[in-house]
Amino acid sequence: MTQTGDPGSGAGVALGVDVGGTKVFGVALDPDNEILAEVRVPTPVPTPGASSGRSVAIAVAEVVARLEATLDRALRAAHAPIGVGVPGMMDRDGRLRFSPNLPQGHGVDWRVLLSEQLAGREILIENDANLAALAEHELGAAQGYDQVLMATLGTGIGGGVIVDGRVVVGGSGFAGEIGHMVVDPAGPPCPCGRRGCWERYASGGGLGLAAREAALAGQLGDVVAAAGGDPERVRGEDVSAAALAGDAGAAAVVEQVGWWVGFGLANLVGVLDPECIVLGGGLLAAASLWLDAARNSFSALVEGGSNRALAPIVAAHFGEGAGAVGAALAARRGAIW
Amino acid sequence: MTQTGDPGSGAGVALGVDVGGTKVFGVALDPDNEILAEVRVPTPVPTPGASSGRSVAIAVAEVVARLEATLDRALRAAHAPIGVGVPGMMDRDGRLRFSPNLPQGHGVDWRVLLSEQLAGREILIENDANLAALAEHELGAAQGYDQVLMATLGTGIGGGVIVDGRVVVGGSGFAGEIGHMVVDPAGPPCPCGRRGCWERYASGGGLGLAAREAALAGQLGDVVAAAGGDPERVRGEDVSAAALAGDAGAAAVVEQVGWWVGFGLANLVGVLDPECIVLGGGLLAAASLWLDAARNSFSALVEGGSNRALAPIVAAHFGEGAGAVGAALAARRGAIW
Repeated sequence: MTQTGDPGSGAGVALGVDVGGTKVFGVALDPDNEILAEVRVPTPVPTPGASSGRSVAIAVAEVVARLEATLDRALRAAHAPIGVGVPGMMDRDGRLRFSPNLPQGHGVDWRVLLSEQLAGREILIENDANLAALAEHELGAAQGYDQVLMATLGTGIGGGVIVDGRVVVGGSGFAGEIGHMVVDPAGPPCPCGRRGCWERYASGGGLGLAAREAALAGQLGDVVAAAGGDPERVRGEDVSAAALAGDAGAAAVVEQVGWWVGFGLANLVGVLDPECIVLGGGLLAAASLWLDAARNSFSALVEGGSNRALAPIVAAHFGEGAGAVGAALAARRGAIW
Repeated sequence: MTQTGDPGSGAGVALGVDVGGTKVFGVALDPDNEILAEVRVPTPVPTPGASSGRSVAIAVAEVVARLEATLDRALRAAHAPIGVGVPGMMDRDGRLRFSPNLPQGHGVDWRVLLSEQLAGREILIENDANLAALAEHELGAAQGYDQVLMATLGTGIGGGVIVDGRVVVGGSGFAGEIGHMVVDPAGPPCPCGRRGCWERYASGGGLGLAAREAALAGQLGDVVAAAGGDPERVRGEDVSAAALAGDAGAAAVVEQVGWWVGFGLANLVGVLDPECIVLGGGLLAAASLWLDAARNSFSALVEGGSNRALAPIVAAHFGEGAGAVGAALAARRGAIW
């Protein structure tokens, strides 16, 4: 987390922007934390060999400009504080130390890049899932709970941990990197460089991987045909759509992803014992297909499951927007706490 | 955590007792937190079919009596507060909800049982590894760090997590059950009922398992011969002793356990990002054989390892006594905080 520029009007409008692997999503929050406006643009694709992240910073500035264009002149003149969420290991100085799912951001000093694009503005930079946890705790599905685990199931898996009502950032700001908990040392390779990370099984990316495996194994004939006959071109969304339309093989693939979601949550509950688990991210769009499977594997696998109160597993109130809402909240107060 | 009985003299002597899978170990701390006395007795073996835990409570009372016998009359009369650490999922009312490595304690209401044996005394009951973390943070190897992970590598693996200087207990008191993080869903069965828990690989019990596997695979000829020729009778201690004496096959088995220690710590550091990792428990007695291997696998496997400061991995200052020291500290203040 870091701040630059002049303080804005803390009690006024706040802007939050969440940089994801596929889209940059922004919200404007009014002083009562109602969402005034939403804007989304595609995340610029990485340039081979380059890791400047400048194109991403330009996209963030575009989202900010489009959000502000929706505000009336007085609010625009007040220079709303801006929060920006980025996936991966964000240090306390605004440098993204490691980001398997945003390779164009690797090593980038976001404080510098964003200051170039948004000169003079107050900018707070944080890990995206930490911000999502903040939003759900303050305003969303985890209100009233002081011990919370948030998992954002998107391209990868992000995590936010709340202990005693505060987001845990850890010694260097890197806490909550739950997606890279290895759950099988012999599992599939992960962009992080290791094998068998939880996010290879239980994210949107994991669904795509499982879909292609099932397609190559000949279990998704109709889905493969619809994708043009090439099993390698089957995407997670294709399998979700087929499952929704009643394809049993596709439904089995999505439920297996749900099993892995519950499996990883059981591991994390053993470590953290939260009172509430909130799930966000793009995979939630297909939650009707896998959330029951996740709850079932969670309750079967969590240590001492029959001798403890099971934390409820709920969908993020803000859905895919949780990170952006949390970014705006944190920007307004000048910190994630 | 729970308390019963009359408050003792908070500023005087405090007693701490750690109930382990193999021994019950107690310490008396003077007002300056110096250890006045230590007592250990074997943990009573479980009676088949019974889970009363009364025999364990009697052993705790015996340890308390023997500790007090070392005190002079005035201190004895002051009724030192007593802290008791127990492995497993201890709820906030003193009931042990689940304890794979203390089956004789499963479901036991320790508040009732200990009050029977130590009538009228102030007793605080907590998870043993949470208490060990407290001791190392306040007085031991983790002094000066506010974000700490403690792992006790004994019969199983216990965990204590410190965030912002406080022990994390979670919503129900069950936080820190790191040993049952599943690291391979197809791994060996665990007493907790699942497969592939981290403690099956990286604890004293895990060393025994690895030793017998290697012995059955014919890799530990001399060790098997020394154990009477039966590979099933090879114990972890036999392999450690052989490795210390220069047996390369035995050394490889112990180093493999070290690899798993580092592997699991890497997973947990991703979640928690501690500034310091403290290792305790009986496996530390052989640390010279495996600690380097653990540090190596940790630094190779932790996410973004080359882009972050690596938390130091250090041995508990109080060794196997950390839980008992923490129990005494918590008893004196009346809470783990």
